[in-house]
Amino acid sequence: MNKQELIDAYEEFEMKYSAYYLAMATMEWDISTTSPKNGKPYAAMRMGVLQGEAFAAMIDPKNLKMLNDLAAIEDLDPLTKRSVTARLKDLAGMQLVPPDRYTYFEQTKHLANHIWEQAKAENNYKLFEPHLLKVIELTKEYYSYYPKKDELYDWMLDDYERDMTTKDYDAFFDLIKEKLVPFIKKVVAAKQIDTSFLHKEYDPIKQRQFMDTIMSYIHYNLDAGMIAVSVHPFTCGLSINDVRITTRYNTHDVASGILSTIHELGHATCMGQFDPKYDGSYIAHCVTSGIHESQSRLLENYLGRSKSFWIPNYPALQALFPENLNSVPLDDFVAAINASMPSLIRTEADELTYPLHILIRYELEKAIFRDQVDLSKLDQIWADKYEEYLGIRPDSDATGILQDVHWSQGSFGYFPTYALGTAYAAQFMKAMRSDLDVDSLLANSQMPVIKDWLKEKIHQYAGLYTPKETLVRVTGEAFNPQYYIDYLLDKFSKLYHI
Amino acid sequence: MNKQELIDAYEEFEMKYSAYYLAMATMEWDISTTSPKNGKPYAAMRMGVLQGEAFAAMIDPKNLKMLNDLAAIEDLDPLTKRSVTARLKDLAGMQLVPPDRYTYFEQTKHLANHIWEQAKAENNYKLFEPHLLKVIELTKEYYSYYPKKDELYDWMLDDYERDMTTKDYDAFFDLIKEKLVPFIKKVVAAKQIDTSFLHKEYDPIKQRQFMDTIMSYIHYNLDAGMIAVSVHPFTCGLSINDVRITTRYNTHDVASGILSTIHELGHATCMGQFDPKYDGSYIAHCVTSGIHESQSRLLENYLGRSKSFWIPNYPALQALFPENLNSVPLDDFVAAINASMPSLIRTEADELTYPLHILIRYELEKAIFRDQVDLSKLDQIWADKYEEYLGIRPDSDATGILQDVHWSQGSFGYFPTYALGTAYAAQFMKAMRSDLDVDSLLANSQMPVIKDWLKEKIHQYAGLYTPKETLVRVTGEAFNPQYYIDYLLDKFSKLYHI
Repeated sequence: MNKQELIDAYEEFEMKYSAYYLAMATMEWDISTTSPKNGKPYAAMRMGVLQGEAFAAMIDPKNLKMLNDLAAIEDLDPLTKRSVTARLKDLAGMQLVPPDRYTYFEQTKHLANHIWEQAKAENNYKLFEPHLLKVIELTKEYYSYYPKKDELYDWMLDDYERDMTTKDYDAFFDLIKEKLVPFIKKVVAAKQIDTSFLHKEYDPIKQRQFMDTIMSYIHYNLDAGMIAVSVHPFTCGLSINDVRITTRYNTHDVASGILSTIHELGHATCMGQFDPKYDGSYIAHCVTSGIHESQSRLLENYLGRSKSFWIPNYPALQALFPENLNSVPLDDFVAAINASMPSLIRTEADELTYPLHILIRYELEKAIFRDQVDLSKLDQIWADKYEEYLGIRPDSDATGILQDVHWSQGSFGYFPTYALGTAYAAQFMKAMRSDLDVDSLLANSQMPVIKDWLKEKIHQYAGLYTPKETLVRVTGEAFNPQYYIDYLLDKFSKLYHI
Repeated sequence: MNKQELIDAYEEFEMKYSAYYLAMATMEWDISTTSPKNGKPYAAMRMGVLQGEAFAAMIDPKNLKMLNDLAAIEDLDPLTKRSVTARLKDLAGMQLVPPDRYTYFEQTKHLANHIWEQAKAENNYKLFEPHLLKVIELTKEYYSYYPKKDELYDWMLDDYERDMTTKDYDAFFDLIKEKLVPFIKKVVAAKQIDTSFLHKEYDPIKQRQFMDTIMSYIHYNLDAGMIAVSVHPFTCGLSINDVRITTRYNTHDVASGILSTIHELGHATCMGQFDPKYDGSYIAHCVTSGIHESQSRLLENYLGRSKSFWIPNYPALQALFPENLNSVPLDDFVAAINASMPSLIRTEADELTYPLHILIRYELEKAIFRDQVDLSKLDQIWADKYEEYLGIRPDSDATGILQDVHWSQGSFGYFPTYALGTAYAAQFMKAMRSDLDVDSLLANSQMPVIKDWLKEKIHQYAGLYTPKETLVRVTGEAFNPQYYIDYLLDKFSKLYHI
């Protein structure tokens, strides 16, 4: 094929890939938000088959040749070059996996995910355990087809965050352990903040109404998105003009649903602001988890937990729940949603203890793929680590090892990006604050100005740049976790007067 | 391949086909019930691509050879034989269509469907017209690849109702015209039934609540189904354990939503009662439209409009709308939901005038594909036919040519099955009544007994038999439209004392 034929073939391939991607994403959305339970096993089988079809199409030798031929063209336009190079990198290992095994892995994971949902509802790890062990075994098999690495887990880490390794993460988490574990002890010993009013009764229907206030404040366009309920909140980007979020409402924890919604709106804002020319292309599909999480955490923590954010929004919340909040001044409310206290559920954790939840999962995953763990005791080891780092022990499977969806989906290597992305966000915020008066914009409901900054600096490019490139482009320097640590120590020292 | 290898290959093919089918059905469900409008064009393009992928997989020469080799095996088990034969019949014409044209047809139809929704909302046929004309042109092109037939429309009729031709339908509709048109004039001239209380204000939220009563009465299992809202009500059978319905609520027409829901529950009951061994197989996918419609109409008209049906259900409706219905005796309510009056909207039409709505569409479609119609005047010709057969003329595009979704989806040849299926149902009812005391079962909330009869006689077999075979198997004789005519004349003579 000549250059133009190759480019045409690549465009056709991108269209086909995006069609499979859309089908899978729509089915995921459906199964997580709405589908009746009896039909889920049937759907799980077929989702695996479709993923196998998409996989076979991707690693088709004709396709790989087309990609390699394209990559070899010297004067290829830089955009196609980026896209092709990113694909080839991601396919380097994948192409070695036998397609029938791939389909089987996917089917096994869909089924495991279905069982996890049941097990969590029934608070019964034993129901899920054989499926989890199977997923672990198949993950090992999957990566065994990849080129050999000293550290199997490095493949997984790289799959979620380009160019990150166990060595990089060890350095990052060592810093967290060193700086945060002793500091958290001081916070625990300090005078505690009253959060009791957050745990009164909050009608979920009214909580849903408040989400309209938040969505409107953030200028989330409901003609190009929607909000639904799922067990595990997530964002589903079907295309630039269809980015959906889910949330959950906890009657006795009003902050949980709100912060979770703001978090998902961070993801959605990012995807909704990609340059439309990337819609359906690999550039739109290959934003790394760390970069994505930086955008959700930035909105949730760095903006959504600030007093400035709540100045225009708190009155609407008070108006919906006057009996719970009319006697609570804004400052007390803001202090309460920032209060830190070691807890069992990662997604409900405060900003300060959050990275320790991730540290625990990181250490567990690393040990699993180093075969240094007795897999029959995973739930116990999980509990032990909570005791070690956070000083508390899960009182049930549902608040322990069953709490997260990720492992049921075979997503190992994903968790570390949550802490990493949060740390990226600290560095991005520093850059943003040097350009914008963030607090004044928040207090004056000028979110579009902040969104424009994010769009110009980060979102528009989707996955065009690697995370390392993005950090340098946006902040002028390489990733530096010290910003994150400094931010946490400073904020919580002030909050707890220590 | 030897016999066993062929059978294995066929099973793998069935699984693949059912995966594509599930993906498409889930995306259809999503786009019709929930997806934000800005994302629809992107999704439409990709749904076309996926259908093209499934199509290419089906007409792959290797696949066709496998099907032909299987069909040639003399001692093949009868079930596989049926399935393979049905597929080969359906593929006979399809395999001659170029795959890239197929993808383009599908994309054009998805887009047309999206525009139709807009045009209907805006009551603007001119917006939809170019898309409709394009769909007609492409439908002609599509069937031009099929083997030649004197009557192009016969291919379409056969696609929706196996073995039916223009000649068969002409005979059927001639009978309808001959017997019903003069009879309807008599009904119009008779003393009219009071239906005014059906058109008071009925809160949609409470209407939705009443659907729970209906779903529970019919024993529709919400663990294996769900109810949502869409512009055009439909049933979506994702698998035997996931059969969903949609409905719509009209504040000033309480009967509309109820009867529409019962109609869709008829489809859902049929699909939910297939023998599980057919789940995901072609046997489950090839139930004809006529047979399907016989099951929805049977539930909606022959059962759902009967007094016996309402004896246990009317009190719940009265309790929800006491201000509208407490002064209305059961007999008056039942008379009102059966009242006949020529009207503009097919889906709202009464039982007696309904087949004339179909006759109009049948004549239009036949003329379109005989090139006997000035396509630039379709909306006018539509209106003229309403005036000719029903004595009324649409006062807007939305109540005229824009009312139905079908043409926007390229579903020509589909409408006639609605009348045909309703006629099948009359013949099925006669058989059911000779086995069961239907009225007593309805009045005593014994719907499961009726469902069991339908399951045993019809539903369990899914698409195993052709409609002609099914009629003979269930009723002991070939299709005879006289039962339908007799039923209508008898029922409405009594109702209107003529």
